Amino acid sequence: MIEQVTARFGAKAVQADRAEIVPWLTDWRGKFHGTSAAILSPSSTAQAAEMVRLAAEFCVALVPQGGNTGMVGGATPPEDGSAVILSTRRMNRIRSLDAEAGVAVVEAGVILANLHDAAEAQGWRFPLTLGSRGSCTIGGLIATNAGGTQVLRFGTMRALVLGIEAVLPDGTIHDGLSGLKKDNRGYSFDQLLAGSEGTLGVITAAALRLVPAIRNRAVSWLGLRSPTDALSVLRALEKGTTHVEGFEIVPRDSLELVLKHIPGTRPPLERQHVWNVLVELTDDGSLQETPEALLERLLEPLIDSGLAEDATIAANEAQAEALWRIRDSISEAERTEGPTLAHDISVPVADMPRFMTEAAAEVERAFPGTAASGFGHLGDGNVHFHVRPATGASAEAFAGQSASITRLVHDLVTAAGGSISAEHGIGQMKRDELARLAPERVAHLKAIKQALDPKGIMNPGKLV
Amino acid sequence: MIEQVTARFGAKAVQADRAEIVPWLTDWRGKFHGTSAAILSPSSTAQAAEMVRLAAEFCVALVPQGGNTGMVGGATPPEDGSAVILSTRRMNRIRSLDAEAGVAVVEAGVILANLHDAAEAQGWRFPLTLGSRGSCTIGGLIATNAGGTQVLRFGTMRALVLGIEAVLPDGTIHDGLSGLKKDNRGYSFDQLLAGSEGTLGVITAAALRLVPAIRNRAVSWLGLRSPTDALSVLRALEKGTTHVEGFEIVPRDSLELVLKHIPGTRPPLERQHVWNVLVELTDDGSLQETPEALLERLLEPLIDSGLAEDATIAANEAQAEALWRIRDSISEAERTEGPTLAHDISVPVADMPRFMTEAAAEVERAFPGTAASGFGHLGDGNVHFHVRPATGASAEAFAGQSASITRLVHDLVTAAGGSISAEHGIGQMKRDELARLAPERVAHLKAIKQALDPKGIMNPGKLV
Repeated sequence: MIEQVTARFGAKAVQADRAEIVPWLTDWRGKFHGTSAAILSPSSTAQAAEMVRLAAEFCVALVPQGGNTGMVGGATPPEDGSAVILSTRRMNRIRSLDAEAGVAVVEAGVILANLHDAAEAQGWRFPLTLGSRGSCTIGGLIATNAGGTQVLRFGTMRALVLGIEAVLPDGTIHDGLSGLKKDNRGYSFDQLLAGSEGTLGVITAAALRLVPAIRNRAVSWLGLRSPTDALSVLRALEKGTTHVEGFEIVPRDSLELVLKHIPGTRPPLERQHVWNVLVELTDDGSLQETPEALLERLLEPLIDSGLAEDATIAANEAQAEALWRIRDSISEAERTEGPTLAHDISVPVADMPRFMTEAAAEVERAFPGTAASGFGHLGDGNVHFHVRPATGASAEAFAGQSASITRLVHDLVTAAGGSISAEHGIGQMKRDELARLAPERVAHLKAIKQALDPKGIMNPGKLV
Repeated sequence: MIEQVTARFGAKAVQADRAEIVPWLTDWRGKFHGTSAAILSPSSTAQAAEMVRLAAEFCVALVPQGGNTGMVGGATPPEDGSAVILSTRRMNRIRSLDAEAGVAVVEAGVILANLHDAAEAQGWRFPLTLGSRGSCTIGGLIATNAGGTQVLRFGTMRALVLGIEAVLPDGTIHDGLSGLKKDNRGYSFDQLLAGSEGTLGVITAAALRLVPAIRNRAVSWLGLRSPTDALSVLRALEKGTTHVEGFEIVPRDSLELVLKHIPGTRPPLERQHVWNVLVELTDDGSLQETPEALLERLLEPLIDSGLAEDATIAANEAQAEALWRIRDSISEAERTEGPTLAHDISVPVADMPRFMTEAAAEVERAFPGTAASGFGHLGDGNVHFHVRPATGASAEAFAGQSASITRLVHDLVTAAGGSISAEHGIGQMKRDELARLAPERVAHLKAIKQALDPKGIMNPGKLV
């Protein structure tokens, strides 16, 4: 098959040099390792379709890969070398950016930061961002239905996709790029492909929604008594404006770790509070007042009523960045403190205050000495639920406990009607846990997978 | 099977009286007629699941039915009596309405108007409405991914569904009601069920997004030169505000028919314009000025620049209603004038101005004497494309042409990358046309259908 691809599409379409392949055989966190005889790199949708057809003919499995920044081993080939990586790296053109309509049609290999820049140059914004923005690709973001920090207002990748172009496992091309706003011709393939982790086809391009660029923002830090109060604050803000873009909850111990380990950080409020919230409001030019004035107006009654114990609004962009730096440094501060077991989970928003408190208590009870805490996107129901070892416990002992701790967390999440994967997907890492906790769901996922990919050539061993 | 359902769930769960069944055997427009030995009516999700399991056991097909207001025969049973209607009429409870979060959990049989009322009573709004609101049900709206007049701002039913509860063809229950905002555990069953027309399962309940109730609205009527100018007006308005909720385009001949046939209607502007647009802006309390002031401010430069030839803003609610009445009476006026062949189609928004003009010309050329025109939701790319017979042509002669006319319209839509079903679905009516125009798509739809419903018991003969 590799010979045929080379013969048809030239040497650029096939990377078989071992040294150049190696970096793409291990996932970003170094947890999963695979083997692949080559990396195929189509330069067009037609080439990608031809490669999928060849793979089907030779019964060779393909592992679609974008920026290789996934968190669950979804883009890492199997160890036995039975599959070949199909990289979208050469499909990296922004095919069009309609500055009238606010729609970008981009190929799968376009790097997120490049799309950000292209949109900004035209007065628009692609409202999804995350830590790996300099490496991750649009195709990967769609295949994993990526989230990030702006989901509260704009939704996950699924909500930003107006249409998808993809090569299906039989080599046919699904072309949804016309991005019809109303189209009722049966099941939505665009929505089926979003979050499919490469198991139903190779996403080659997408039509994406843009929103007007931000002109101004206001950032505030609030001190609160409880996650329940934090949720009440969020509801009150959302009743007053549709411009709330960030609403991050931070427990006292996370804040303390940041102040302890991250140089240059300072307590945002005069005294300590059991819970903290960072709020961001943005203005794209449609507000009739400054976002600071709006935020102040909305926060005032919440402080007067005592719902918020204290609050500060950043006086300038430097202060705003300092507040965000606290939020964004929590993971780093925890890693400096010692080993941390992270969980990417979600529960219904209304249940999140209860869950954050009770699940942490339950984990600490079941594993004496450990410290569990949740922080993150309260408005999305997305908890970053971290567990740290008992003081003095060895890293080895903690590592030995980690599978049991994770099982407990997953059980608690499932009991709360939540998801064991809020953002990162299932990939290889959570496949067995999903099968354990949701066997019926997995049976249905498998049936769909089998229906569209009867030969099992698309990213086998992932998700199902 | 009917005996078993009666024995287990009582007489209320089975309607076998012929006189009471008959009204449900014909579709709303009287185009499709079927036969069914009984109507099964579960009162709970558990009962519905049990009925589906019995149907699977006895290999009896089920036809899910809500308000029976569909436009494509999707809820009409087959003529041969091989299937039984499964009605959601007894599952009509609003299970919860969270006035803090703006989320309603409602059963499939809840009538849309009842949800509107319940939301309004709590200061909220369910932002989807259509002509049959007094009869259509939430389950049917989801199964057909219904649209309506507010899609421009809030999207179709697919975008308003936070989660779905459904009985799948194997009798298992998919429970997505927790409405997680972030959940990446593989393919989205909620999104797969939206628009599935009862072929993948019976929707039993849904968690739906509510939005703050409207406090005030501004409605304007504009006179324009072309659909292209209309689209420029829309883009300009959307750059200035996110509150544009209606943007309807009306050609001169449609307006003339309304003024001719609908009593009490008056020309909205002083002189005639080749094209007209109705704009609606709404305020849910988050605007800092009145919607009239905002609309005036946004329209002023468009009139100054000559993009809009003329405009009037309704001075009060009665005037606003009069403007909407013109738009809403077009179909009635056309029916009064004579037979009309309607098409529910969509094209990419940016292409809609060209399509409306060229497709009408092409149809009139191919079928001399006919008059073709498009009106409807410009912002959604959704054209109501109507063809009327030549003056003096007999209704019979026109009826004889209608299949050929529709084929041409569908060919033109397909060539433009559009959809032969924007809002109504495929059902029985468009099944053959979909198979003709998109055989690969239908093959993939069939594969998914077969995977989840191997016995073919869910609404056979519809969609695929």
